[in-house]
Amino acid sequence: MNQQQTVVVVGGGVIGLSAAWQLARSGRAVRVVDSGQRAASWVAGGMLAPIAEAWPGEEELLELGAASLARWPEFAAELAAASGLPSGLRTEGTLVVGVDGADRADLDRLAAHLAHVGRSVTPLGGRELRRREPSLGPAVRRGLEVPGDLAVDNRLALAALRAAAVNLGVEFCDGRAVRVRPGEVELDEDVLRCDVAVIAAGAHSAELHPALAGRVRPVKGEVLRLRARPGALPPPSRTVRGPVHGRQVYLVPRDEGGLVVGATQHDVGFDTDTTLGGVRDLIADAERLVPGLTEYALVEASAGLRPGTHDNLPLLGELEPGVLAATGHHRNGFLLAPLTADAVVAELDGREPPEPVRAAAPGRDTDTGGPPCRS
Amino acid sequence: MNQQQTVVVVGGGVIGLSAAWQLARSGRAVRVVDSGQRAASWVAGGMLAPIAEAWPGEEELLELGAASLARWPEFAAELAAASGLPSGLRTEGTLVVGVDGADRADLDRLAAHLAHVGRSVTPLGGRELRRREPSLGPAVRRGLEVPGDLAVDNRLALAALRAAAVNLGVEFCDGRAVRVRPGEVELDEDVLRCDVAVIAAGAHSAELHPALAGRVRPVKGEVLRLRARPGALPPPSRTVRGPVHGRQVYLVPRDEGGLVVGATQHDVGFDTDTTLGGVRDLIADAERLVPGLTEYALVEASAGLRPGTHDNLPLLGELEPGVLAATGHHRNGFLLAPLTADAVVAELDGREPPEPVRAAAPGRDTDTGGPPCRS
Repeated sequence: MNQQQTVVVVGGGVIGLSAAWQLARSGRAVRVVDSGQRAASWVAGGMLAPIAEAWPGEEELLELGAASLARWPEFAAELAAASGLPSGLRTEGTLVVGVDGADRADLDRLAAHLAHVGRSVTPLGGRELRRREPSLGPAVRRGLEVPGDLAVDNRLALAALRAAAVNLGVEFCDGRAVRVRPGEVELDEDVLRCDVAVIAAGAHSAELHPALAGRVRPVKGEVLRLRARPGALPPPSRTVRGPVHGRQVYLVPRDEGGLVVGATQHDVGFDTDTTLGGVRDLIADAERLVPGLTEYALVEASAGLRPGTHDNLPLLGELEPGVLAATGHHRNGFLLAPLTADAVVAELDGREPPEPVRAAAPGRDTDTGGPPCRS
Repeated sequence: MNQQQTVVVVGGGVIGLSAAWQLARSGRAVRVVDSGQRAASWVAGGMLAPIAEAWPGEEELLELGAASLARWPEFAAELAAASGLPSGLRTEGTLVVGVDGADRADLDRLAAHLAHVGRSVTPLGGRELRRREPSLGPAVRRGLEVPGDLAVDNRLALAALRAAAVNLGVEFCDGRAVRVRPGEVELDEDVLRCDVAVIAAGAHSAELHPALAGRVRPVKGEVLRLRARPGALPPPSRTVRGPVHGRQVYLVPRDEGGLVVGATQHDVGFDTDTTLGGVRDLIADAERLVPGLTEYALVEASAGLRPGTHDNLPLLGELEPGVLAATGHHRNGFLLAPLTADAVVAELDGREPPEPVRAAAPGRDTDTGGPPCRS
């Protein structure tokens, strides 16, 4: 490893900051290009939920997520120590619940799939659910307990990551990257030279390098931020997520009565409007799970652009010598940040990345008829 | 009139700014105390709608509102000229519509009441309504056309009023007034001397002078601000207001596809939280009137505190020598601003205020068993 190696990380979201921090810890000189646009990370719910989000056919993503989730407690402890700030990690676990018959069938399918891949979860009835979370409404009649699926306060984590990076000498450059080549990152009005460039620009990554063209698309997610008002029932202590009449919704608690409600999914291009219909559906679904939310304050309604890929796996690895991709994390940026940062450092060290990361190699499509890739 | 008279206006909302501007035009030296808190005026829908809001038993308020509405076109023209900015006045008129049978009965009662007080309005069926406003949904089956009820973009008007005041030398003092006595306005950390003080502090007025104690209460109103997105149906060109299943809702168009949706009414003290239940109801009612709003962007959800009085009339006049009240305008701050400013100037000039203002005299309760009053 070259102790003098210079790295430019394109993107100041959770992936870029995690990579920058870990690269700085490895002794490299790191700069982060940050467009100043609020990244998807700023809007995110911060669920660390590979089990609750498992899906038949996405076994590699489950393994990747589970491996990164296993890294989180240590990652969070190191982050808190390095930053002097709270990491935001919450360890209360997750309940997956359903309302109608079709939702219950969804839960049964999820439980069967998890049993099939060796990750059994506990089914619970309405009474058992309300014993755990008294704020759940009468419509909630079936659920699964997933104690290992955690959550993180995304904004606390981002602040801690930035502070940890700054403490290790990481520099931040305001600007918008327009192209990444070996040895240089071209900005709107500047060019940054470097030994290695890491593309962690989320939904904006596709335009930065030809090997990413057409392989990362923006997937809009609308999110509400609530706060319990005096006299209102406290929010659930665990993450509660549903299908509610077939729609996915999640409620992720924060400190001091905060609650994040998400998230819609729309393939609508680079559009971060929060739509009235999206907000209406989120409110309806959240109130169906926790009726007392009607008395909560609506603090914020916002939308972020997740970086989606065709198979929901990220793009993690070398695109060409001197250019790495760490993007396409879709709904899983916070979950996959620790392992992604490990993989980036390993790659630059010339070591093998963690085993589950192989499935996310940018070249995976070359043999399968997927989009073209130059790596 | 003493050309050197110094006036301190407490409050930088529409009433305070209108009074300050007109007082400065009359040659007085004016300072405005502005707490920097966003006033109810900032949140307001800006309806100028005395007819649509007429209510049996509130004939004096109707006369006051109608007289002030008649002043608006000239007031707006002078404001635009004095500020070099748009006044925000919109002259497209108002439709009052209803959805269910009870709503239609409400409309019939309103029409009968208006006919009784000599202000007939035109009843319209669903087809006629949709011919005027094609965005109205199929649930809207009955309405009244009130072409004389107008609206103003509250934020444009506030900016223009402030600019007009500044152009005439009005000074603005940051600070929170805590007490008003003849000759002085006491702030948190300062005392301003003056010949006359005008209390235009909206919902915060009651604490400033003993004659207002218990006579002005905060009435929270939650308001949404929407914007038509590309491809969405344009908003109505007129103000559209309902009862929707018995709940009052209004949609007030702004330039460039903007739309203000209001407003809830809650007597909850000094609380400006936007509640989830309030937002949910506003969305539901607005979509019932104009279904295409589902595609609109939700730009802002906010709440303001209207200054309510026991009879919905403002408190307009001298409290004691050297102290004037111009507060308690409840839902009608923008509507009543021109006549209120006229009345304040007339009072200081020693002239009779406009006739309909008499009903708003702060002393009106002394004879009727209402709250105590020292004026």
